[in-house]
Amino acid sequence: GKVSDSNVFHLRLSYFLLGDDSVKGRPKEIPHNEKLLSLKYESLDYDNIENQLFLEEERRMSHMSFRCLEISRWVICGLIGILTGLIACCIDIIVEKLAGFKYQVVKENIEKFTEVGGLSVSLLLWAVLNSAIVMLGALMVSFIEPVAAGSGIPQIKCYLNGVKVPRVVRLKTLMVKVFGVICSVVGGLAVGKEGPMIHSGSVVAAGVSQGRSTSLKKDFKIFEYFRRDTEKRDFVSAGAAAGVSAAFGAPVGGVLFSLEEGASFWNQMLTWRIVSYVSSKPPCYKTLIKDLTMLSSKIKNIIVAYYLYEIPLFIAMGAIGKNLLCVYILTVYVHRPYLQVMEAMLVAAVTATVSFTMIYFSTDCQPLDPEHSEEYPLQLFCADGEYNSMATAFFNTPERSVRSLFHNQPGTYNPLTLGLFTLTYFFLACWTYGLAVSAGVFIPSLLIGAAWGRLCGILLIWADPGKYALIGAAAQLGGIVRMTLSLTVIMVEATGNVTYGLPIMLVLMTAKIVGDYFVEGLYDVHIKLQSVPFLHWEAPATSHWLTAREVMSSPVTCLSRIEKVGTIVDILSNTSTNHNGFPVVVQVTGNEEPAKLCGLILRSQLIVLLKHKVFVELARSRLTQRKLLLKDFRDAYPRFPPIQSIHVSQDERECMMDLTEFMNATPYTVPQDTSLPRVFKLFRALGLRHLVVVDDENRVIGLVTRKDLARYHMGKHGLEELHLAQT
Amino acid sequence: GKVSDSNVFHLRLSYFLLGDDSVKGRPKEIPHNEKLLSLKYESLDYDNIENQLFLEEERRMSHMSFRCLEISRWVICGLIGILTGLIACCIDIIVEKLAGFKYQVVKENIEKFTEVGGLSVSLLLWAVLNSAIVMLGALMVSFIEPVAAGSGIPQIKCYLNGVKVPRVVRLKTLMVKVFGVICSVVGGLAVGKEGPMIHSGSVVAAGVSQGRSTSLKKDFKIFEYFRRDTEKRDFVSAGAAAGVSAAFGAPVGGVLFSLEEGASFWNQMLTWRIVSYVSSKPPCYKTLIKDLTMLSSKIKNIIVAYYLYEIPLFIAMGAIGKNLLCVYILTVYVHRPYLQVMEAMLVAAVTATVSFTMIYFSTDCQPLDPEHSEEYPLQLFCADGEYNSMATAFFNTPERSVRSLFHNQPGTYNPLTLGLFTLTYFFLACWTYGLAVSAGVFIPSLLIGAAWGRLCGILLIWADPGKYALIGAAAQLGGIVRMTLSLTVIMVEATGNVTYGLPIMLVLMTAKIVGDYFVEGLYDVHIKLQSVPFLHWEAPATSHWLTAREVMSSPVTCLSRIEKVGTIVDILSNTSTNHNGFPVVVQVTGNEEPAKLCGLILRSQLIVLLKHKVFVELARSRLTQRKLLLKDFRDAYPRFPPIQSIHVSQDERECMMDLTEFMNATPYTVPQDTSLPRVFKLFRALGLRHLVVVDDENRVIGLVTRKDLARYHMGKHGLEELHLAQT
Repeated sequence: GKVSDSNVFHLRLSYFLLGDDSVKGRPKEIPHNEKLLSLKYESLDYDNIENQLFLEEERRMSHMSFRCLEISRWVICGLIGILTGLIACCIDIIVEKLAGFKYQVVKENIEKFTEVGGLSVSLLLWAVLNSAIVMLGALMVSFIEPVAAGSGIPQIKCYLNGVKVPRVVRLKTLMVKVFGVICSVVGGLAVGKEGPMIHSGSVVAAGVSQGRSTSLKKDFKIFEYFRRDTEKRDFVSAGAAAGVSAAFGAPVGGVLFSLEEGASFWNQMLTWRIVSYVSSKPPCYKTLIKDLTMLSSKIKNIIVAYYLYEIPLFIAMGAIGKNLLCVYILTVYVHRPYLQVMEAMLVAAVTATVSFTMIYFSTDCQPLDPEHSEEYPLQLFCADGEYNSMATAFFNTPERSVRSLFHNQPGTYNPLTLGLFTLTYFFLACWTYGLAVSAGVFIPSLLIGAAWGRLCGILLIWADPGKYALIGAAAQLGGIVRMTLSLTVIMVEATGNVTYGLPIMLVLMTAKIVGDYFVEGLYDVHIKLQSVPFLHWEAPATSHWLTAREVMSSPVTCLSRIEKVGTIVDILSNTSTNHNGFPVVVQVTGNEEPAKLCGLILRSQLIVLLKHKVFVELARSRLTQRKLLLKDFRDAYPRFPPIQSIHVSQDERECMMDLTEFMNATPYTVPQDTSLPRVFKLFRALGLRHLVVVDDENRVIGLVTRKDLARYHMGKHGLEELHLAQT
Repeated sequence: GKVSDSNVFHLRLSYFLLGDDSVKGRPKEIPHNEKLLSLKYESLDYDNIENQLFLEEERRMSHMSFRCLEISRWVICGLIGILTGLIACCIDIIVEKLAGFKYQVVKENIEKFTEVGGLSVSLLLWAVLNSAIVMLGALMVSFIEPVAAGSGIPQIKCYLNGVKVPRVVRLKTLMVKVFGVICSVVGGLAVGKEGPMIHSGSVVAAGVSQGRSTSLKKDFKIFEYFRRDTEKRDFVSAGAAAGVSAAFGAPVGGVLFSLEEGASFWNQMLTWRIVSYVSSKPPCYKTLIKDLTMLSSKIKNIIVAYYLYEIPLFIAMGAIGKNLLCVYILTVYVHRPYLQVMEAMLVAAVTATVSFTMIYFSTDCQPLDPEHSEEYPLQLFCADGEYNSMATAFFNTPERSVRSLFHNQPGTYNPLTLGLFTLTYFFLACWTYGLAVSAGVFIPSLLIGAAWGRLCGILLIWADPGKYALIGAAAQLGGIVRMTLSLTVIMVEATGNVTYGLPIMLVLMTAKIVGDYFVEGLYDVHIKLQSVPFLHWEAPATSHWLTAREVMSSPVTCLSRIEKVGTIVDILSNTSTNHNGFPVVVQVTGNEEPAKLCGLILRSQLIVLLKHKVFVELARSRLTQRKLLLKDFRDAYPRFPPIQSIHVSQDERECMMDLTEFMNATPYTVPQDTSLPRVFKLFRALGLRHLVVVDDENRVIGLVTRKDLARYHMGKHGLEELHLAQT
């Protein structure tokens, strides 16, 4: 069930106060999301299910067929690249046009009322426009597809890690996401559109690579070979890379992003496909999306070089960047859809009001520079030929504000403006982050970072503020998302300036180290709060105490190689059997000992078998019954029907099913004394879903699944264990 | 034994003619190196040996100890970074000074004789100088440390893949390498110094991380925890990254290089350490090494932007780049040391002669530009105020030549000069590559590529030749080393120009795809010729036919849990036992069946046990005998004495040894029906050395080692199997 709102709020607050010890002191029975591990998430099979059918198919394939597959992979990558690029393009152009229109209307209105007086009408117009636009987006997200809320990066991270987040790569999600992000950005919220672009890329990849749409019930009968988790994962990973590439114009950064955030096993082929993917972006696209790449051309000219003595300063900025994160997650989650929409509208209105107030009371007038003129300069109470400096930061899409912070001449902003802007925008961003709208945190983070970075630059007098804005932006973003290598390359590619590679890297590293000391990154916190059984890169350091025997689930429901249909139906219908893989064993007759392992079969496979009624008796009686092929499993993938929807008559319950052909005959096993780090390494490196624990006679004594490993984590005082929850 | 030279030459020639089919037609008994797999190479243990001692130590360690270890890792990384940077610095400065001195002397001599006539004296001086310098380097390499020959990158690649190449990370190798590369470059050979810098970084890492020098017999008693293959691998990988960073000024490229070329398992922590490593390069270093980074500042100004319509051209250039590789490996290997030295001297003399001839007959005079004046402009027969253009390419260190090809104004070179230069330099580079001197191929490849790239640019009239030189260089280098992601980033970082990221990536991809269709990359060919059991990223596509039963070695020599010393000594002394791991089994008494697996022990561990005489009887009789600790194994690492050096008396042969505490009690196992790709994936992902094959009663029936998997590879006509050779 849902955890009550007040608890989540407390939890958030305790995070805010930087010690979760306060939480520990409270009675155990109060459920805290992040101290729990949900059992509702299924895992994905990133290890091929090598049953007889699969092996026969692979063996039938000639050298030539593998070449063809390789070519299809390239074709798919090309398609994904083009589609992702086009979607990103569309979002960019529509946002640009609509936001331009909105700011034009408001600007004219303000100008009209500045002379006459009665600016409250303008404020009202602005607030109502924002609220209305945001409402549309929030309605879509709350009522049609709640999983489209947020940036989508945590969800993609989970997917690549091997956790099946329901509906995350569906067509409907994509639609809602694209529409939602346009509304959020145009609605003037403190959000960016980069995260959603990355998510969109992944959805496109998951769709295209399967050669069909389950939602639209359209099967193109192509790419059938790729209809399994292993292959799909590679493409989704590539899709995320294409998304980054499209969002930031950073192809190499995109590849690194995929590898750093997602892929559990550095797969050369995977990289290749991603590279192909990314580079097959249509060139026209490059010319169309001028938005973020303009970051590049501009800064390059202004920021010339960094001085070595500034590196310690940069590092210090990295440390600051992180501390600001802690407050970032102070967000209140609301669960009822209509309340969510109301909240989103409220935030939109408040954002407009705050911005307006800040601009109104600002006295920072700057002369209009004909060279790089602002897009929507607000004169307001400034003299002719001057504009309100606060308005460049607030009365603009966040991307443009970042750009002006990076490249505007020294002296464009006064420190007070920047300080006030940082503070207000920061709190707005925090509040916005918890909303049920699709929105990313990259650009708001960059903006906040750029603002206080520029402030630092100004206070240090001798420095070039644009340079410090860049470093501040890197520090802030690094503190929030905790990426290093990929973010360095993304920043370098986006700004088009290699000179800053080293300081950005140092700043990001500092931000990560300092940040990790206090609290995890935003995405990780997000994942934790949703109780996802996420596997990190390595087992906790002090977990050598534990062995497979202690972590495994036991006893395990096993099946015989030839099993009664009734038994299988009962096992699958039993809701207390919460794992989805069943060891297949050979029972020595008349022996009460646990039986010897001979294979492993999945719930989904059993369901397909039941649906097609692959019973020994039927095969004998009806000669016409065709042999089940791998294709039947692929057709059912990935939405296998629930067991309740399959009707099995009383007669059929007495039949037998022969699992030999369909089970994975060589599942990975470990002895029961294997230490946890060893089990973890095996599980993580191979992307397993089930790992059978056997004794020295090869008899099944337990089963290790993702949740058994994800349960252990390093707390402040050593190894801690999370509790499991059915929800 | 050594394969006769003529065979190797034929092999090389058959490669040259682009079809190894000719080789297949010949009788089987003639040994071809690349059709064999040598058994002389041992594997490294990239999977921790989790025996009782290890687990006890890990369990004793507190949370705090792990923190301390983490700090030591940072310290080590810092040290490696600084040392690698300093070594690279030294090489750079010494080469610069000595080469400058040499060219000055020759230049003055040429100028003297140009007027008087009798330039043959100058030629003689140049040739003799070159030969003498090269001789020094060749003497060192041939007589002191032959493994220091070449660039060292193939060896490091093997090391990171898990193959122990003897003496590759020793102090002596480092010394010879550094001295050798200085001699080669100063001696005017067609070589670069970047490969050796990467190798040097790895050696430094391997040394520093162990906290002692086995060669110098000096133990600092620090970093003892890191004295095992797993940890050492991580540091060596970081060292290679630092090497790239130092050689090209490309920290991010270095990290990628390590990951693309070496690390088998994308390890987050590993990346981290590398990053730390790389960024802890002393800043002073940055200012000192002006050499390659000047590439950056210069080209940036010249090359402004690429046009989209040029991309197909660039791709075509990528395709050309690869074809040139095929000839690159036409090298004759000579095996006797003194002959090697003679050959090196000959090549040095020929290089000088050819260069001189080319310069002498060249009529390409260019006006001296006071702005970017050549370092050593040769006037020769040109008019006053002019210099010989051919001389800028030949009468210079290769780095400088590359730079001038990239950044000189259009019109500096005429097409004939470039064409002739490409041809002659190409053949010189080919010949040089086979020499026993330490030398890299990066810079010569870049130079050749830049030359024909610039030629293309000139022939296309409308184009900026500098731009085409860059693309040509990328294509040539990509065709030879077949790196993609890392090379893109290295090129971008070295040139300091992000704009060319996309075309460079495309060119490198094309070069790789086209190249892979014909022949493997230079490093891979090199590795193959040395019959190294190298494991690629994935098992061959059509290998699903094979199962563990077919690939495993069988029967396996097993040991009992409590074994007679005599038996162990006999097994270890038996030269036909060519594997280094022994399954430990529990024999059911009076049963002739294969026994149940209970552990795995390594040859090196047994040797340490024998050396310390850890016998059951002694432990009982002498109460004073101390328990063997993990430290004893670490002290013996990595040079375990051979079994012959350990004296075991006849009485002692009757004693018993209890292996329980020392064996790895939970080795990975697979059932015998496991398909080869599955075995391969397990082996590669976990960095295993031995994989035990068991039947369904957990009885040992075989052992899979590296050579059993490396044996299968994709040939032109499907799966092929290499033969095993004892040498």
